Amino acid sequence: MSELRKDLVSGRWVIIATERSKRPDDFRPGGGGAPVPEAVGFCPFCEGSEGKTPPEVFALRSPGTAPDSPGWTVRVVPNKFPALTRGTPPPKAGEGVFQWMEGTGVHEVVIENPLHALELSDLPAAHIRDVLGVFQHRIRTIESELHYQYVQLFKNKGKEAGASLSHPHSQIVATPIIPKRVKEEIYGADRLFRGFKECAFCRVLAEERAAAKRVIAWNASFAVIAPYASRFPFEMAIYPLRHSAFFTEVRPDELVTLAETMKQALTRLKDTVGDPPYNMVLHQAPNPSLSLKGWPEIDQRYHWHIEIFPILTKVAGFEWGTGFYINPVPPETAAEFLRQP
Amino acid sequence: MSELRKDLVSGRWVIIATERSKRPDDFRPGGGGAPVPEAVGFCPFCEGSEGKTPPEVFALRSPGTAPDSPGWTVRVVPNKFPALTRGTPPPKAGEGVFQWMEGTGVHEVVIENPLHALELSDLPAAHIRDVLGVFQHRIRTIESELHYQYVQLFKNKGKEAGASLSHPHSQIVATPIIPKRVKEEIYGADRLFRGFKECAFCRVLAEERAAAKRVIAWNASFAVIAPYASRFPFEMAIYPLRHSAFFTEVRPDELVTLAETMKQALTRLKDTVGDPPYNMVLHQAPNPSLSLKGWPEIDQRYHWHIEIFPILTKVAGFEWGTGFYINPVPPETAAEFLRQP
Repeated sequence: MSELRKDLVSGRWVIIATERSKRPDDFRPGGGGAPVPEAVGFCPFCEGSEGKTPPEVFALRSPGTAPDSPGWTVRVVPNKFPALTRGTPPPKAGEGVFQWMEGTGVHEVVIENPLHALELSDLPAAHIRDVLGVFQHRIRTIESELHYQYVQLFKNKGKEAGASLSHPHSQIVATPIIPKRVKEEIYGADRLFRGFKECAFCRVLAEERAAAKRVIAWNASFAVIAPYASRFPFEMAIYPLRHSAFFTEVRPDELVTLAETMKQALTRLKDTVGDPPYNMVLHQAPNPSLSLKGWPEIDQRYHWHIEIFPILTKVAGFEWGTGFYINPVPPETAAEFLRQP
Repeated sequence: MSELRKDLVSGRWVIIATERSKRPDDFRPGGGGAPVPEAVGFCPFCEGSEGKTPPEVFALRSPGTAPDSPGWTVRVVPNKFPALTRGTPPPKAGEGVFQWMEGTGVHEVVIENPLHALELSDLPAAHIRDVLGVFQHRIRTIESELHYQYVQLFKNKGKEAGASLSHPHSQIVATPIIPKRVKEEIYGADRLFRGFKECAFCRVLAEERAAAKRVIAWNASFAVIAPYASRFPFEMAIYPLRHSAFFTEVRPDELVTLAETMKQALTRLKDTVGDPPYNMVLHQAPNPSLSLKGWPEIDQRYHWHIEIFPILTKVAGFEWGTGFYINPVPPETAAEFLRQP
């Protein structure tokens, strides 16, 4: 089992892999732990290779087909090399001034479709809607059955974005604590709510709509915006227009529109900068099945959204030291390119 | 001039390049703004190419040699493509709910030695001491002459760590505001000081010395530690044993020891994982020439240090969403390898 450790001064938590820890040679070119090149013609996520993954926890599949066999359209399996392991969240423990806890949690992979070469943006909107529905189902199940405080959904596309397998997939990680970055956003939203007397995200959406220059797409239920303080070139954020703190509250009819909106955003990104590696990250409020002490009105004050950013620049010493980012493309310019044609 | 913009909810600032902004084609393979391959045999930082950089602002050079000519051992020049431009820090301005300001500041390059192939760790300790002395001199000068609130010193070695030129160099960026990450560390240190009744970093050093298992090196003036909650494999931190909030307060005799300590740490890193790309980042208190309102006892509560981490893993969607890091090498294992032989 891995270990969660807290940095004393910053309050940042890290996951330390203790059992499968790597050795220096693993990082040398050609070393023992170097990324194994994918064998040509073999992929554990392709249809027909179901036996090469841990047994599926959920799948959308044709009636009459058996679990862990062909016949599925979206398939969820535990990560074979999980960062966190299922178990009852233990109490925090101390080691001198330091805090740590056992690395309990969930780490699942959502295989978005059976075909290796079909990227998320290549799928029909109806299939993307199914993928989004599976995300909702897994998040709801993990939140209601297991007492983990936060569920993080994300997608790494391309090696530079951290993907170790190229078959299109997303990942779900549930953590026993509310991550620092999530807390910061909640605190920020809470502080702004008290000033604005309304949700800060709703306020920003109204201003962005009026200013128009950072709007990439706007439909009946969702907006795609190049954020005012974008960290990365061609960064995008998808916001629901109907206020809600939880992605799991998106209604089935809205899910169709979200699928179309996401397909449009990803397709425009691909057309604009040429199929870049990217990260897609869900931001939502913590597990609503737990009593959210200290945030009684979180459903009014937080507003779920999805960030999408291509990996075109490097995070370097300046960013690590300051938390500043240097973005060579103003979001107004990015929006101009991303909303065409 | 670039623009500083503040993210409303997180409070994070970014630097948006407005004048020299890039276009989508610049990011396509072979596009206009793709990193220009270094011409074989030519480097603007090598001795003899002084005319290819902006005029030097400082150099350690042989008596009788002219500025911007050969004869130097360490040379400081403005960055040819600065993220921030010199000027009086302007007031913050508003655009609806958003805050921004003109991108004033300093961006300098410290060329560590005239020879392209000599990395920082290859230099004699006496030369490294000179480089460290030049860092101190430039930081002191910028802090006393210009009213920027924070000076960030950092080194990017290797393309994966964000270096665009391979000739060994470091960078100094002064910003008109105190960066979020620096504020967080100061707030954290302040909070801990009130609990411990002593500097949190001094307390950690005492515990690390006793525990011994994360100690990489320990001498009369400095300790090299694998931090308890290391984010990255083989992450190291150099701490002064004499409490001080400012790197500029390191005394000349201590600077010799720091040079030896840094050479040892970088050499061990190179020997252990094979000359990896790395970032080196200075953490110190904000500009002491300004009245540091709200932090009257910052000199007692903060403790400068240097972080060094090789780039062996990718930051991916999970890290971006949560602020968590997944480290496949426990710091105890890293220290065991880094402190040998």
